Amino acid sequence: MSEFKLITTEECEAATERLLETGAKVGADSWQMRVKNQTPHCKFGEQGVCCRICSMGPCRITPKAPRGICGCDAAGIVGRNFLRFTAGGAATHSDHGRSIAETLYEARPEGPYKVNDPEKLIRIAKEWGVETEGKDIYDLSKEMGYIAMAEYGKVFGYQNWVSRAPKHTQELWEKAEITPRAVDKEVSYAMHMTHMGNSSKAEALIRQSLRNGLSDGWGGSMTGTEFSDVLFGTPKPVDTEANLGVMKAENVNIIVHGHDPSLSEMICEYADSKEMQDLAKEVGAKGITIAGVCCTANEVAMRRGVPMAGNFLQQENCVLTGACEAMVVDVQCIFPAMGPLSKCFHTKFITTDDRCQQPDSEFIRFSPKTAEENAKKIVRMAVENFKNRKPELVHIPELKAKATVGYSVEAIVKQLDGVTNSQVDVTGTTKPLLECITSGALRGAVAMVGCNNPKVRPDSAHIDLMKKLIANDIVIIASGCSAQAAAKAGLMDKEAKAICGAGLKRVCELADIPPVLHMGSCVDISRMMILASELAKDSGLNISQLPVVGCAPEWMSEKAVSIGNYVVATGIDTFLGVDPYVSGSAEVAGLLTDGIRDWVEAAYTVEKDIEVLGDKMIARIEEKRAALGI
Amino acid sequence: MSEFKLITTEECEAATERLLETGAKVGADSWQMRVKNQTPHCKFGEQGVCCRICSMGPCRITPKAPRGICGCDAAGIVGRNFLRFTAGGAATHSDHGRSIAETLYEARPEGPYKVNDPEKLIRIAKEWGVETEGKDIYDLSKEMGYIAMAEYGKVFGYQNWVSRAPKHTQELWEKAEITPRAVDKEVSYAMHMTHMGNSSKAEALIRQSLRNGLSDGWGGSMTGTEFSDVLFGTPKPVDTEANLGVMKAENVNIIVHGHDPSLSEMICEYADSKEMQDLAKEVGAKGITIAGVCCTANEVAMRRGVPMAGNFLQQENCVLTGACEAMVVDVQCIFPAMGPLSKCFHTKFITTDDRCQQPDSEFIRFSPKTAEENAKKIVRMAVENFKNRKPELVHIPELKAKATVGYSVEAIVKQLDGVTNSQVDVTGTTKPLLECITSGALRGAVAMVGCNNPKVRPDSAHIDLMKKLIANDIVIIASGCSAQAAAKAGLMDKEAKAICGAGLKRVCELADIPPVLHMGSCVDISRMMILASELAKDSGLNISQLPVVGCAPEWMSEKAVSIGNYVVATGIDTFLGVDPYVSGSAEVAGLLTDGIRDWVEAAYTVEKDIEVLGDKMIARIEEKRAALGI
Repeated sequence: MSEFKLITTEECEAATERLLETGAKVGADSWQMRVKNQTPHCKFGEQGVCCRICSMGPCRITPKAPRGICGCDAAGIVGRNFLRFTAGGAATHSDHGRSIAETLYEARPEGPYKVNDPEKLIRIAKEWGVETEGKDIYDLSKEMGYIAMAEYGKVFGYQNWVSRAPKHTQELWEKAEITPRAVDKEVSYAMHMTHMGNSSKAEALIRQSLRNGLSDGWGGSMTGTEFSDVLFGTPKPVDTEANLGVMKAENVNIIVHGHDPSLSEMICEYADSKEMQDLAKEVGAKGITIAGVCCTANEVAMRRGVPMAGNFLQQENCVLTGACEAMVVDVQCIFPAMGPLSKCFHTKFITTDDRCQQPDSEFIRFSPKTAEENAKKIVRMAVENFKNRKPELVHIPELKAKATVGYSVEAIVKQLDGVTNSQVDVTGTTKPLLECITSGALRGAVAMVGCNNPKVRPDSAHIDLMKKLIANDIVIIASGCSAQAAAKAGLMDKEAKAICGAGLKRVCELADIPPVLHMGSCVDISRMMILASELAKDSGLNISQLPVVGCAPEWMSEKAVSIGNYVVATGIDTFLGVDPYVSGSAEVAGLLTDGIRDWVEAAYTVEKDIEVLGDKMIARIEEKRAALGI
Repeated sequence: MSEFKLITTEECEAATERLLETGAKVGADSWQMRVKNQTPHCKFGEQGVCCRICSMGPCRITPKAPRGICGCDAAGIVGRNFLRFTAGGAATHSDHGRSIAETLYEARPEGPYKVNDPEKLIRIAKEWGVETEGKDIYDLSKEMGYIAMAEYGKVFGYQNWVSRAPKHTQELWEKAEITPRAVDKEVSYAMHMTHMGNSSKAEALIRQSLRNGLSDGWGGSMTGTEFSDVLFGTPKPVDTEANLGVMKAENVNIIVHGHDPSLSEMICEYADSKEMQDLAKEVGAKGITIAGVCCTANEVAMRRGVPMAGNFLQQENCVLTGACEAMVVDVQCIFPAMGPLSKCFHTKFITTDDRCQQPDSEFIRFSPKTAEENAKKIVRMAVENFKNRKPELVHIPELKAKATVGYSVEAIVKQLDGVTNSQVDVTGTTKPLLECITSGALRGAVAMVGCNNPKVRPDSAHIDLMKKLIANDIVIIASGCSAQAAAKAGLMDKEAKAICGAGLKRVCELADIPPVLHMGSCVDISRMMILASELAKDSGLNISQLPVVGCAPEWMSEKAVSIGNYVVATGIDTFLGVDPYVSGSAEVAGLLTDGIRDWVEAAYTVEKDIEVLGDKMIARIEEKRAALGI
């Protein structure tokens, strides 16, 4: 019998309870308290039938009032709200990608930003038809950075990345008129369509939702992922740890939180410097611990093995330990609660990005051009803050789990090469993985993604589903807060093979991988699209034929809806545990869960019962296998 | 005593009542009925404190629940909603401008789209630093069309049009960090800032609201206006008529409704053709009447003298006459009610734009490349529909007023040249107007803009304010549905000088103008920005020193908020009669009505009592005069 044990949801909850006691002592607010104040939620909003798009209203659809003042019905209102939700997410993800392109444009041999993976840069340049021969790598990075930025506003044509999709997928998009054009144009187009007095036809609104999503997944997000790799290195397997116990009472603790690695990479660099390590000792600390929250955590964990303190709903917990000298944030998913909360402790809450300005924070404007000096100032501020810690408030839960992370597509292929018989097989493909699937050792794969949401017991859906799936020989690729949920519980420990089905266990052993593969942050779901495309090309199948599904059981942000749209539009059935505010229109819900299958060969399933959600995914995977006769 | 009489609001309402009786006979729905069903409105929405930006909620701020689940407070939620409102408007207006740029790009000597004002094109090209010497005008239009489209996605730099603003204005923008960059980028940036977990600081959100507005007024909208002039001719004074009485029972009536003149110009062209006139006679009609609704009406009235059937809240009335063979729409402000309503009559409801697809419509996809064939099909469909009219339902109210419209900046300057003593004065400037203001003959000017909104008795605020202002020697420049309200009432009849103060009356006589000058559609508020800039340059004053204010007493759309933001940011105090969903945050409301004055030398006033609103505008104008010592 294996000794391997996961950290349970109950253990995590007990740790949180203990931290909330500290919070209570200092009069801190918490999301748990705010949820109580905000429940029950407005049912019009939850059903998607509330319209605030013009100032004649707000209007709300009821049986007595089946149309808004302009005459828009439930399908139009729900559809518009869904498209705007998508546009918000696509704009946000993609703007992160733009920042990475801007950083690439600023890369210089003397730093602070360097080209870490020149081969990947050259490979992409060739893909995009950019001359590379005899070109200095920094001339090339500048050129590619510019082209990547221009993709957001190109006058004609589609996103460059589209050419990576299988031909069949590209044909489906063309036929459905959803091939994505300039990233920002799709956002503006969506906003225009949903403006008062424009589209109210559900089909048109959902079609644009898919196109706007694709401009993210096969546009801005892919730019974010691919050029982050070029700048900071393409991830490869690395050992790390996860959960609040990675913070160290004896050290200066700096939490990096947000999404864009441009800032956090610099913070890590500078925290490692002798100057700062010496200063830490001067102020009485043993050293400096950098730990991550949300996707910033994923970024620096994947490339540096920096430990992950937690995911979305754990951000307040970091401050509640009383041992957080600084919470340094860039963009997205930063609770505005962090400002007031930090004031209850000694924690410096440092905002750095023009797009994420919050009250009760210290704002240090970060830019690629001044990155070094910004990072130095921030780390110094954190270290000097160690002396202000109140020892009586310090309590760091002892929970932490081991994790091996860093499974980029390149890393997975390399890992697969290790089990290839190089005498007879071609290396550098996904074929060994396909063989495992065909043989039945693996039944299929699930891409687990998305956030936490208080509507679901935090992390429980992620973890329960993963446990169920791996026990059924289904391998998981995970990203975002879902990946962190897995890591915190121990599912990214290679020893987690112990709780897998026999087939998956054998694959984990042979390939030396954990059963849940960390593919990165939420923009890195683009990696999953690339992997699915490679599997389709290597197998000669369409993506929709592969026994692969996507799942976001605890999603909460607009980005997640944009992701869902591009995953589905890529041909991958997607399973949601939280309703995307569309239940108020049978027409819109019907399109999303069924109708769009005619266009993209995949659709959504929404199921709040997590046990049933898991059953449905397994059934779908087995259905696809049966159709293939495997 | 003058015989001149305005058409009263009561007369218009009586006409509407009569039409609603027809509606009742055929079981038609109406906005008047839907308003009853939708009242009272949700107070959280009206106050701006409802947040649906992620799926943890919806959240609502109350005294018991002062923060949303993420910790965002009222200021953050109201500020985000306001910025998103702006982004929706800026994207929408600007996307209209993009369509015009696309049409310009397609212009060819053999048509259907030709360069009608080559001088203006060359003038703009020189402004933008584009070589014009010896270049074929259609090579230039293609080049300029491309550059104009590229302005939406330029990687670096600001909007080209910004250089038209007075230097002082440009400096204020630079200092406040609100100079607009690429149009679509500002929209994406706004969506990113307002995404869950980003900006919650009111000041940052309002700053971006101004910048996003400026990317419309000094970006997309100005592109729409200026290149519409290049394509279809720069407006000059032309006589027309307004109100429902312009429809003719004996004719085929085609209503063009929406905003983009690319479609309506073609419809007008083809309806005038002998082929169609003959066909009309064949089907038993005397001819074909084209009449406009909303800003499409403004576009074709300004350039062709096509009569205006009505403004926003009169769109259903056109169908209720029973004499509307086709309602042909492009984009924006099209009631989704038109589809079901048209089904109660013989009216063909024809949608033409991918961005405005509505149920119960016939969709004929319009594109500049296929414009002629699309227009022919539409006009033919309308004419052939004449035979389906039900005579017992036909009733066209006899109301109509004379109007002289077409006051572009160029036309105003030309009109002023007529009263210039060319022996001593330079021509081609706004100086004669400035002299009228300095002398006190004119006390100042008000830019009246915006929509109808059932929250205000339709048109009454526009008309009552205009009557009050012109009686006080304040000249009005009007656009959008405000201009149509004026035209319908008779305020654009030159005889309306009879109800002006003595000073304005004298100016009207000398310059041969009506007291309310029609400057065009809602994108044409950019004309007002150009006029204000010229006045500032010609006077040596800052825009904010001019005795000029803006007013949108009955606004309803997101576009109006985008407009308000760029008008205020240009230095013009702006008066609103409908609250922009910001009353839930004293901080946001305080910024908009006062705080932003520190950045842009102007701010908003919100006042629902229209009488008081007028008094406040007059007081502000007199304040500015006093400060100048005039």
